[in-house]
Amino acid sequence: MPRGEAAGEILQAGGGNVARRRAPEAATRRATPKKAGRSEGKTKAHELASQARHISVSEFFAKNRHLLGFDSKRKALLTTVKEAVDNALDACEEADILPEVAIRLEALEGYEDRFRVTVSDNGPGILPDQIDLVFAKLLYGSKFHRLRQSRGQQGIGISAAGMYGQLTTGKPTVIRSRIGPKHDALEVAVRIDTVKNVPVRTREKTLEWNRPHGTEVCIELVGQYKKGKGSIDNYLSQTAIANPHVKLTWQGPNEIEPIVYEPATGKLPDPPKEIKPHPYGVELGLLMKMMKSSRSTRLGAFLQHDFSRVSAKVAKEICDAAGLSPTARVKSLEHKSSEDLHKAITTVKIMSPPTNCLSPIGEDLIRKGLQKEIGEAEFFVSCTRSPSVYRGNPFQIEVGMALGGTLAADEPVRLLRFANRVPLQYQAGGCAITKAVTSVDWKGYSLQQPRGALPVGPVIIMVHMASAWVPFTSESKEAVASYSEILKEIRLALQGCGRQMQKFLRRRKRVADEFKKRSYIDKYIPHIGQALRDILELSEPRTDKLVAELRDTLERSRKL
Amino acid sequence: MPRGEAAGEILQAGGGNVARRRAPEAATRRATPKKAGRSEGKTKAHELASQARHISVSEFFAKNRHLLGFDSKRKALLTTVKEAVDNALDACEEADILPEVAIRLEALEGYEDRFRVTVSDNGPGILPDQIDLVFAKLLYGSKFHRLRQSRGQQGIGISAAGMYGQLTTGKPTVIRSRIGPKHDALEVAVRIDTVKNVPVRTREKTLEWNRPHGTEVCIELVGQYKKGKGSIDNYLSQTAIANPHVKLTWQGPNEIEPIVYEPATGKLPDPPKEIKPHPYGVELGLLMKMMKSSRSTRLGAFLQHDFSRVSAKVAKEICDAAGLSPTARVKSLEHKSSEDLHKAITTVKIMSPPTNCLSPIGEDLIRKGLQKEIGEAEFFVSCTRSPSVYRGNPFQIEVGMALGGTLAADEPVRLLRFANRVPLQYQAGGCAITKAVTSVDWKGYSLQQPRGALPVGPVIIMVHMASAWVPFTSESKEAVASYSEILKEIRLALQGCGRQMQKFLRRRKRVADEFKKRSYIDKYIPHIGQALRDILELSEPRTDKLVAELRDTLERSRKL
Repeated sequence: MPRGEAAGEILQAGGGNVARRRAPEAATRRATPKKAGRSEGKTKAHELASQARHISVSEFFAKNRHLLGFDSKRKALLTTVKEAVDNALDACEEADILPEVAIRLEALEGYEDRFRVTVSDNGPGILPDQIDLVFAKLLYGSKFHRLRQSRGQQGIGISAAGMYGQLTTGKPTVIRSRIGPKHDALEVAVRIDTVKNVPVRTREKTLEWNRPHGTEVCIELVGQYKKGKGSIDNYLSQTAIANPHVKLTWQGPNEIEPIVYEPATGKLPDPPKEIKPHPYGVELGLLMKMMKSSRSTRLGAFLQHDFSRVSAKVAKEICDAAGLSPTARVKSLEHKSSEDLHKAITTVKIMSPPTNCLSPIGEDLIRKGLQKEIGEAEFFVSCTRSPSVYRGNPFQIEVGMALGGTLAADEPVRLLRFANRVPLQYQAGGCAITKAVTSVDWKGYSLQQPRGALPVGPVIIMVHMASAWVPFTSESKEAVASYSEILKEIRLALQGCGRQMQKFLRRRKRVADEFKKRSYIDKYIPHIGQALRDILELSEPRTDKLVAELRDTLERSRKL
Repeated sequence: MPRGEAAGEILQAGGGNVARRRAPEAATRRATPKKAGRSEGKTKAHELASQARHISVSEFFAKNRHLLGFDSKRKALLTTVKEAVDNALDACEEADILPEVAIRLEALEGYEDRFRVTVSDNGPGILPDQIDLVFAKLLYGSKFHRLRQSRGQQGIGISAAGMYGQLTTGKPTVIRSRIGPKHDALEVAVRIDTVKNVPVRTREKTLEWNRPHGTEVCIELVGQYKKGKGSIDNYLSQTAIANPHVKLTWQGPNEIEPIVYEPATGKLPDPPKEIKPHPYGVELGLLMKMMKSSRSTRLGAFLQHDFSRVSAKVAKEICDAAGLSPTARVKSLEHKSSEDLHKAITTVKIMSPPTNCLSPIGEDLIRKGLQKEIGEAEFFVSCTRSPSVYRGNPFQIEVGMALGGTLAADEPVRLLRFANRVPLQYQAGGCAITKAVTSVDWKGYSLQQPRGALPVGPVIIMVHMASAWVPFTSESKEAVASYSEILKEIRLALQGCGRQMQKFLRRRKRVADEFKKRSYIDKYIPHIGQALRDILELSEPRTDKLVAELRDTLERSRKL
């Protein structure tokens, strides 16, 4: 069937330039060709088709910026800091460098709501030619295509922050970077061309920089700075809890001195390893795609090399179960055979995926982190579960709790949510972590709990999900999606901590009861003494003695 | 600065093909060049850079499929139906055709969890060359770049459903379409190349079709079919409420006869008009982008032609306030002048945006729709607010309530959420609509309400947001983002309905009290009669008379 004229037009109109030229006038100019089209005997379908075009991913996110966490001025500021800090920490850790990250927020003079965010690190720096792509192109990065725990995973965040800055202030993102003492430090300003989703470098220069290597990113944006829930301050203090190896320096707009979060340990976490996909988590379509693009020629080799936990023996078992030969050519398998192979995988016992792609905080450091940052509590418990798997992705749940002390006893517990060591600040209601916490029956652990809500008590609960791929409910990475395997693991970890907490609460209750009883004794014994003296007609000293004896006996009996 | 070798590699590696070739082996093969790179004196930055690459939008969404509503088998089925129905309704309405949409779900034999979804409409059909782009390319469509109410807006949904089908079953999407009685009907099968985000047509043929025009899409996918909350059945019955002009035919997998939702009106809603952006909602960055791409040469003309509600007079006022001349050349304005212009806009009084881009359901049809689909209630109220604006986007809130009858009185109210006539089935907790409902003090309207929760009572609340751009919290379009203007309007509409509801509830309470009192009288009056007879020593007939008088007096006094 030959291409109609209208269809030809559309395919052209998809190009970025054309779309840009047409965009603002589209509404008015379209009317004329539309009617003309109709009158030439074209169908309604032609008319509708003439309006269709490609949408660039940056146009999409510019319009849908709330998906990326830029739906309010205050949140935009937090998201910008968060994306920059996430990137800085990831870069340092990948280069085996103990991270030192400095965050500075300046209120810009002459404006009510404009700020400059500057985040600098002692990381490995970024190659001059990479800077533009990293900071001004959405969907570009090193973390998306691998299976390994990291804070960033999408290749969107920091470029989106720069795009938001550009949209609200017209200013480019400014980056300083140096990749080593023998290399120049470079300063680059980049904008993002949202119609094409490509970076545009607007200026560059080399500069003197007093650090051997590192990166500094600087974004001007419209924002609002306020402390409290969901603030940069909260985010940073929670970052310190989940990253006890990191030094953070935070200079807010109204502070004279920066706040410094000193590390609680001088040891980097074990670096997580990259793994290959596990056969159990691979769907038919993905299996077919992997077969198509594999470097292996034979089916057996493909299974062994392209998956984790598939030995020659397991590969043969899978092939046998599918009725296929391990020497079959991967690329000439029919759809039917692929289906058989896919079904066969589920029937063969395969070891769980390797978990060295994960980097949990650990029970010890969780307690230390909580102790350091939550001074008002008096008792700390923690629980790190064994790794588990959802949709083929390894993950691991950790829970910590800070209890008692001067924490408010008659308010809902405070819940701190973390994913890959990043504190989550928004969308608590839509998060699997919140759902898991409210679904536990806390009355069994001596806490009150309104139906379907967080329990009430002097407790701070921290939940950390570490995974090679955290399933966030939106690109802004504020909440974890509710996969049943994840919910289950969180519940089990909470219950583990709950039991420890209950011991503490019981002991505390016993002590409290103790005190209460003691105060009763102290209160009433003199009266009893008085009564006894009258009844038995005792002398003052004799009465005192009797009262003392009585007190001792009561004390003793209580301790039995 | 010359490009380093490593950087050159990366720029190449961004291409789809290279990425595909490398993907599965990346983990193993990368190790070698990495170490080699280091030993040649390259920095850690070179090593990290060698891992960075482009991510295609379809790869991104394939991995993040829960963002699109494919996080469970059951939801995947609903999302697929929903996207297909949304598209069918939009297409019919744009072509001024009263929509007749048929949905068929078949369980595929030989599988536990495979289904075929077929959705067909009497719409205008799709041009042969457009079919592939519409059904197998993410971020392609006619609705993203315009300001006008429609169900679809992103150009993602139906292609994502096809991609999910392909990933889980390996099968392509099959489309039949005919654009008019003089044209052939065409059947096309398309796959999506996820690495490049482009469609691949796998087969095509012309066919006999007994309809003059229309489209049918057929997707095989792994799913789960179950009735109840979040089911296809619920989605369709709610679609019928919000679209009283639509005929829906629904053939479930276990039904012998299809369910038919007949339209409640034979009139199409007024077609919404496309509008231009309103100056108040335009941020500095967007303003600068619009100036760059405008077809107008002069500033005054730019303001008049590229925005809505800017007359020559308003354009001049803006220019005056900015200290700029209306005859200034748009494309040669400096950054400073753009800022001045942007600031000036906020100081000039400009009429609210036109609202003919919206298509609300209307108070009458809301009540009719509720009455038709919720037979168990006895009283119906509704409230359509005047249009309002968030971030420059016009929107309008409507609320309907069904009350009393046999609705459960001791359970939380049922909340039905709609956006642009589409019922929202998931993520109620994260939705501005839920937040607005729980934030109203329902005790003021005679309903019980646990703290921070939905009120309790025999009520179904329906909330509809109509907008030229609904800000969804994720691409799956399940919840509305909480912009303060939107929350406020929903609250006002709820309060409007609340007052009407309260009248009903009060009347009902009065009647109930009445009944209660009457039964007391009936119960005690004989006893009172007995007592009086004894005290006053009355005869039997005299007593009966007195009792009757007493009853009358009591009745009368109650009616006053």
